[in-house]
Amino acid sequence: MEELIQRIIKDGRNLGRGILKVDGFINHQVDPVLMDACGREFARRFKDVGATKVLTAEISGIAPAIATALHLVLPVVYARKHKPITMPDQVFLTLAPSHTKGNMAELIVSPEYLRSGERVLIIDDFLASGSTIMGLVRLAQTAGSSLVGIGALVEKSFEGGRELLNPLGVPIESLACIASMEGDQIVFGNCD
Amino acid sequence: MEELIQRIIKDGRNLGRGILKVDGFINHQVDPVLMDACGREFARRFKDVGATKVLTAEISGIAPAIATALHLVLPVVYARKHKPITMPDQVFLTLAPSHTKGNMAELIVSPEYLRSGERVLIIDDFLASGSTIMGLVRLAQTAGSSLVGIGALVEKSFEGGRELLNPLGVPIESLACIASMEGDQIVFGNCD
Repeated sequence: MEELIQRIIKDGRNLGRGILKVDGFINHQVDPVLMDACGREFARRFKDVGATKVLTAEISGIAPAIATALHLVLPVVYARKHKPITMPDQVFLTLAPSHTKGNMAELIVSPEYLRSGERVLIIDDFLASGSTIMGLVRLAQTAGSSLVGIGALVEKSFEGGRELLNPLGVPIESLACIASMEGDQIVFGNCD
Repeated sequence: MEELIQRIIKDGRNLGRGILKVDGFINHQVDPVLMDACGREFARRFKDVGATKVLTAEISGIAPAIATALHLVLPVVYARKHKPITMPDQVFLTLAPSHTKGNMAELIVSPEYLRSGERVLIIDDFLASGSTIMGLVRLAQTAGSSLVGIGALVEKSFEGGRELLNPLGVPIESLACIASMEGDQIVFGNCD
């Protein structure tokens, strides 16, 4: 998606070690107009998958997931990393390695909002190693939902996430794909 | 705002001890169409305050803040509770007591995205004791920004937050105000 790629070229920064700084428009400061455009584009790409729910992980998946869900007119569920007191004692919980923190993070969803028979579209900000998204996939599977698609704003194609997720057999759509991040470069490539 | 009040009556639950469960449409599962309507209403109420930025706190402030910012066509900044590696070493940081967890939480904003001269509109999901919002106010003041308004989806009027914030001298707008939560009741009242 050209609009997102141009914004990464303009405001993104390669901090080294594969870390892309996009906190001026995606994950600390958010450009809601850009996010709405990304949501509209995801909705267009996934309009025929028959999703009944959008699933994401807090924190930075929330903005793109809600933008997408608004255009598809579907509820969103964001997996929590800490169980709030409003959640029942019995929950769906899985662990996913945190790329940027180096530890394991919990992903928790209430069974009230992810049920057997749902058709789940996963939307997140990044597709890198794919480990967070695989955690969301496990939550959906545990709930008896079926996965119908995976979307990410930015894919770091060199981290192998797509290879991990391809065997799931659902469409995977990324709006900007980065082929390499050598030195301080950000090199875009095809999303496949 | 009648639409939000009706949704709280239909899907909200009083869990006792002042805890309102709204995680079916606000803070775990999110109804993006309702959130968009709330954002439009905040944008209408704050259209003349001259805001240049919307400020909120992760996690559950993100959805209403982005919805509002989309309608005002402004950037949003959400204060982080943990400093990500993409943030510079020098940050704005304050502590705010966490109502639902009983401990203190950090609120962190990068100086890159909150600058002197900004006109800040704070949007959050709840106005209860006002302590999280006061934390955001301190961040804005430290940055040299001026505060121009405060909005919350749901105000628990019996927790005194409005009295704490009134001396700031800015408009405070809540879309649904709860006067009391005795027993399992949720009693709505006027927002003032």
